[in-house]
Amino acid sequence: MTAPGGVTPLQAGDGAAPDPPMRWWGWGVDRDALHLPASAQRLIEAALGVKEAAAPRVNLAAIELPSSRLDGDVRTRIEAIVGSEGVRDDRLARVAHAAGRSYPDLVRLRSGRVAAPDAVVYPASHDEVRVLLETCAESGVAVVPFGGGTSVVGGVEPDAGSFAAVITLDLARMASLVELDEVSLAARVGPGISAPQLEAELAQHALTLGHFPQSWEYVTIGGSVATRSAGQASTGYGRIDKLVLGLRFAAPAGEIEVKPHPGTAGPTPALRELLVGSEGVLGVITEVTLAVRPLPEVRQYEGWSFKSFGAGVEAFRELEQAHAAAEVSRLSDETETALSLASAGQTAGRLAKLAQRYARLRGHDRGCLAILGFEGDADEAMDRANRARMLLRGAGGLRLGSRPGAEWQRQRFRAPYLRDELLDRGVLVDTLETATTWTNLPFLYAAVADALRNALTARGTPPLVMCHVSHLYPAGASLYYTFMAAQQHGQEVEQWQAAKTAACDAIIAAGGTITHHHAIGRDHTPWLRAELGDVGVELLRAAKSRLDPRGIMNPGKLLP
Amino acid sequence: MTAPGGVTPLQAGDGAAPDPPMRWWGWGVDRDALHLPASAQRLIEAALGVKEAAAPRVNLAAIELPSSRLDGDVRTRIEAIVGSEGVRDDRLARVAHAAGRSYPDLVRLRSGRVAAPDAVVYPASHDEVRVLLETCAESGVAVVPFGGGTSVVGGVEPDAGSFAAVITLDLARMASLVELDEVSLAARVGPGISAPQLEAELAQHALTLGHFPQSWEYVTIGGSVATRSAGQASTGYGRIDKLVLGLRFAAPAGEIEVKPHPGTAGPTPALRELLVGSEGVLGVITEVTLAVRPLPEVRQYEGWSFKSFGAGVEAFRELEQAHAAAEVSRLSDETETALSLASAGQTAGRLAKLAQRYARLRGHDRGCLAILGFEGDADEAMDRANRARMLLRGAGGLRLGSRPGAEWQRQRFRAPYLRDELLDRGVLVDTLETATTWTNLPFLYAAVADALRNALTARGTPPLVMCHVSHLYPAGASLYYTFMAAQQHGQEVEQWQAAKTAACDAIIAAGGTITHHHAIGRDHTPWLRAELGDVGVELLRAAKSRLDPRGIMNPGKLLP
Repeated sequence: MTAPGGVTPLQAGDGAAPDPPMRWWGWGVDRDALHLPASAQRLIEAALGVKEAAAPRVNLAAIELPSSRLDGDVRTRIEAIVGSEGVRDDRLARVAHAAGRSYPDLVRLRSGRVAAPDAVVYPASHDEVRVLLETCAESGVAVVPFGGGTSVVGGVEPDAGSFAAVITLDLARMASLVELDEVSLAARVGPGISAPQLEAELAQHALTLGHFPQSWEYVTIGGSVATRSAGQASTGYGRIDKLVLGLRFAAPAGEIEVKPHPGTAGPTPALRELLVGSEGVLGVITEVTLAVRPLPEVRQYEGWSFKSFGAGVEAFRELEQAHAAAEVSRLSDETETALSLASAGQTAGRLAKLAQRYARLRGHDRGCLAILGFEGDADEAMDRANRARMLLRGAGGLRLGSRPGAEWQRQRFRAPYLRDELLDRGVLVDTLETATTWTNLPFLYAAVADALRNALTARGTPPLVMCHVSHLYPAGASLYYTFMAAQQHGQEVEQWQAAKTAACDAIIAAGGTITHHHAIGRDHTPWLRAELGDVGVELLRAAKSRLDPRGIMNPGKLLP
Repeated sequence: MTAPGGVTPLQAGDGAAPDPPMRWWGWGVDRDALHLPASAQRLIEAALGVKEAAAPRVNLAAIELPSSRLDGDVRTRIEAIVGSEGVRDDRLARVAHAAGRSYPDLVRLRSGRVAAPDAVVYPASHDEVRVLLETCAESGVAVVPFGGGTSVVGGVEPDAGSFAAVITLDLARMASLVELDEVSLAARVGPGISAPQLEAELAQHALTLGHFPQSWEYVTIGGSVATRSAGQASTGYGRIDKLVLGLRFAAPAGEIEVKPHPGTAGPTPALRELLVGSEGVLGVITEVTLAVRPLPEVRQYEGWSFKSFGAGVEAFRELEQAHAAAEVSRLSDETETALSLASAGQTAGRLAKLAQRYARLRGHDRGCLAILGFEGDADEAMDRANRARMLLRGAGGLRLGSRPGAEWQRQRFRAPYLRDELLDRGVLVDTLETATTWTNLPFLYAAVADALRNALTARGTPPLVMCHVSHLYPAGASLYYTFMAAQQHGQEVEQWQAAKTAACDAIIAAGGTITHHHAIGRDHTPWLRAELGDVGVELLRAAKSRLDPRGIMNPGKLLP
C-alpha cells in the first residue's frame, strides 16, 4: 500500500563536486566583506587597549600541507563508489575543509597551521554514503561529515583519531528538495541543501522553514540537524530539532529510517533525538523530513527599550509564559546595547542616536535594547503583537518603533564578517552560549560574565563582555555572550582557551547547559560528562559501539 | 553555587503501603459505577446481535493464586530496604497488581486466570529504588514498575521472564510534589503522584499541568511519562513528553539525572527521550520535573457539526495549521457520532436530539460531531476561538453551541466504567489508536476500520467500528478507534487477538504508527521492529544492556 496524492516528488540533486562556497580563511566571499563603522572601531580599540594589528594572513600557496595519506587502493575503492569527480585532494579543497569557523580555527587558518583532511569525498546518495562508510571502516579511514563548515566548536576538525588517514565527507551533492507534501506541510530534503537554497525553493510554494541561525547564508540543513541548531527566530518557529519529523541515517554498521509520524507513544522519538544532534559521531544524516509552514503574511519587527537587563528579562518571561512572544525575541544587555548603537551604519546610526535620546528622556538612561519580530498569519500575529505590547508596557518597556527592527534585520547575518575584520585589527572576539531556567538566569548571567572578565583581565587583556537573550522557553531562556579583548600575539589560542575554560566551568557550576546554539563539537567535550553524568555518557557510547564499532566517525567530537 | 530564590521546597511523600485504589476486576471503585442508558444498550445489543451475557465474575477468594515464589532471604533483604510495611503479598495486593486494564486483562481477571506477582514492593525514595534494583539483579528477581495500573497494552503484566520470581514495584509511596518553581513554571514530583492529586496541589498555586488522559482519575505521572502518554487536551498542552523538563532515573546498573535545561544544543534530549517512554524496561523513573502553566482563565467548550468525517478532518487540518486549534480538539466519525447521541444521559439526550435535528435541517444528515475546548488566558483563548470559528464556518462547520461541550466534559472519564458494564453484558469492547500525516490520514482511517470489520465478521461477530481524531499536529493527527462485537464465549481472548492483529497489521501496512496514546507494552511488541527497523531495535537493546545487563526490568514489554 502506498499513500495517496498531495505530495510533489521533485528532482534528485546531483552534479560534480562543487568548489567551496566560502573563502578558505574566513567568512563568506570577499565581495561580501562588510566594514565596521569607524565609531565602533574606535570604541572597541579604546576599550580594549588594542595596540597592534594581527600578523598578515598567509597565502594559500604558502601553507605547508602534508601529502595525502590516503592509500592508493582505498582511493580507488572510494572512486568506484562516488566517481573520480567525487574525490578531491587539491590544495583549495583540502584547506577549505581543514577547519570550521571558530576563533581558534580562524587564528590557525590565517597562520597556515592547519591539519587538512587527506581527501574530500562527495557522495551523491544515501546508498553511496552507506557503502563509503563500510569501505572506510574496513580500511581504517576516519570520516568527518561536513555540511556548510560553519561549526564554531571544532565540529569538522579533520582529526584522524587512531587511524592512518581521514577523509572529509562533504554532502554538497546531496542538496535537493526531494519531496514536498503541501497538505501535511512536510519537506523531505538532502542533508547538503543550504538554508538559503531551501528557503528559495519553499518560497516558490509560499512556504518557509523558519530556521535562521546567524550562519544562515552558508549553513546546511544536515549540519543544522546534526548539531541541534537554534536560529534567530527559534522562539517562534522552534529550534531545528522541533522541526525534524523524520530522517534517514547511514552508519558504518547499519542504517536507520526514523519515520515521520507526527506523534507517537512508541520509542521513535528516542531514536530521532539520538540521531538529531549526533554531530557525525554515529554516522551521517542522509535525508531529513522537516515541518514547514506558510510564508508569513506579515513581518512586524520593532525595537523596545528597558531600564535594565533584569527588567527586560522579567518582561520577556511574562511575554513567553503568556504565549505572546515574538518569533524573534532578543534582549541585549547594557554593554551590547551600547555597542549596537555605536556599530549601526551611518543613517541607522543617526536614527539609533535619536532613539537613544528618546529613551534617555524617559529615564532609560543606560537602557537595554530589545528586538521583537512578529511573523505569521496577519490576524494571529497582530493579535499576539497587541497582547505583547500591552504586557511589555506594563513591565516598563518603551516602544522605539520599527526602525531598530529594520536595522537589526539588515544586520542579522553580519557578525561573522565583522569578526574577520576584528581579527585583522588584532582583536580576540568570540561568542558562547548557554540556557537555564528563569529562576536561575540572573545568577548564571553574572557568573559567566564574571568568569570571562576575570580570566582575560588576569592575562592583562581586560575584555568587553556583552550578552543577549535570544531564545525564550516557558521554563527559561538562552544567554548568548560576545567577548572581545586585545589579542596576545603569539598566544592567541592559549588566551582564548583560558577565557573559554573559565566560562565553561562557570556555566556548569552555575547550572547552565554547556551549549544552547553551537553544539558540543571538540571544544565542549571536557564538560559533557558534567552535563550528562557517567551513565549518560556511557549510553551514548553504547549507541556508538553499535553503529560505529571501529570508531571511524568524527573522532574527538561530542563524546569525551 | 546554588540557584537563588523563587522555588518552594515542599514536603517529601512517604507513609505505609496503601491499598489498591481500584476494584481488582475493573475500573474505579464500585460506588463510581455508571450505567449505560437503555437506549444505547438496546442500540449496541441489536447492532451486534448479542445473545448472552458474560459468565459471572469469580470472587476474589476463589482465585487460585500460587504461593509467592520470593525466596525468604531475598524477601528479608528487600524488607531491610523498604521496611516490612513496604512489602505486601496478601491476596488483594497480588491480584490488584496482576494485570492492567486492557480488554484481555479484564477478561482474565473476571475469570480468575491471572499471573500475580510474587510480592508487591513499595519503595519510598530514589535511593531505595536504586538499592532494590541492585538487590533484585543480584538475586535474579524480575521487577515490574507500577504506577496507576491503567495500562491497556499489557505494560504491567507480572511476567517473570527467565527468572524464578517477579515483584511489582508500586510507586505509591513516592507521590509528592517535591518542589514548585513558580517563576520558571516547573514542578518536581515523585513518580507515584496521581494526576488528580497533582492537579489539586497545583490548583492551590493557580497552576495546572494540563495532562488529562481518559484514565486521568487513576493514572500516575511516572506511568504517564514512562508510556509517553497523550491526554485529551494534548493538542493544546502537549503530550506528556513535551511537558517533561528533566527526570531522575534508577536502573539496576546505574542512575541518571536528566537536568531540566529549558533548551540545549547538546545531547540531553537524546537521554531524556530514551528514558521517557522506556516503559519500565530500562529502569524506574524516580522523579520528574514538569512544565506547568497558569490555570486557564477561561474554558470554552462547544460542539460543531460537519457533513462528513472527511470534511471535518479537512477543517481540523486548517485549524491546526493556522495555529487556531483548541486545547481539546476532537472529531467523531459518523458511527461514533450516532452512538454518542444515543449514549447521552436523559437530559443531555434530549438536547443531543435537538442538536441533531438542527444539524439535519441544515443538510448535516448523518453528520459528524466535533468538540472544541478552548482554554487559557482570556484574551488569547478568545482571540483564537474567534479565528477558529471563522475557519470552521468557512470549512462548512455548523456550530452547535456549548451544550455538547458541557456534555462531553461531564462524560470525559466515563468510558472505562461503561466498558465494565458492556463486559457484564457479553460485549467485546476495545480501543486502539494510531497517527499519521494529514495526506495519509483518509487512507489509514479506512484501512484500519476495514481490517477490524473483516476480522470480526470472519469470526461470525460483525462489529461496530467507530473512530475519532483527538490530537492534532501541524503535520498530521491521531486516529482513535473503538470496536465492539458480541463476545465469543470461551474464546474471548482469541477473538480479541484476531481483531487486534488485523488492525495492527493494517496500521503498519498503511503507514501509521503502531501507537499514539497507549504505548507498546506487551501487546504491540510484535510490530515494533516494523516501526523502528532492525538497527533501531538494536539501539534500544544496547541501552538496555548498559542499564539492565541481567534483563530483570519488565520482561516481555516494549522490546520484541
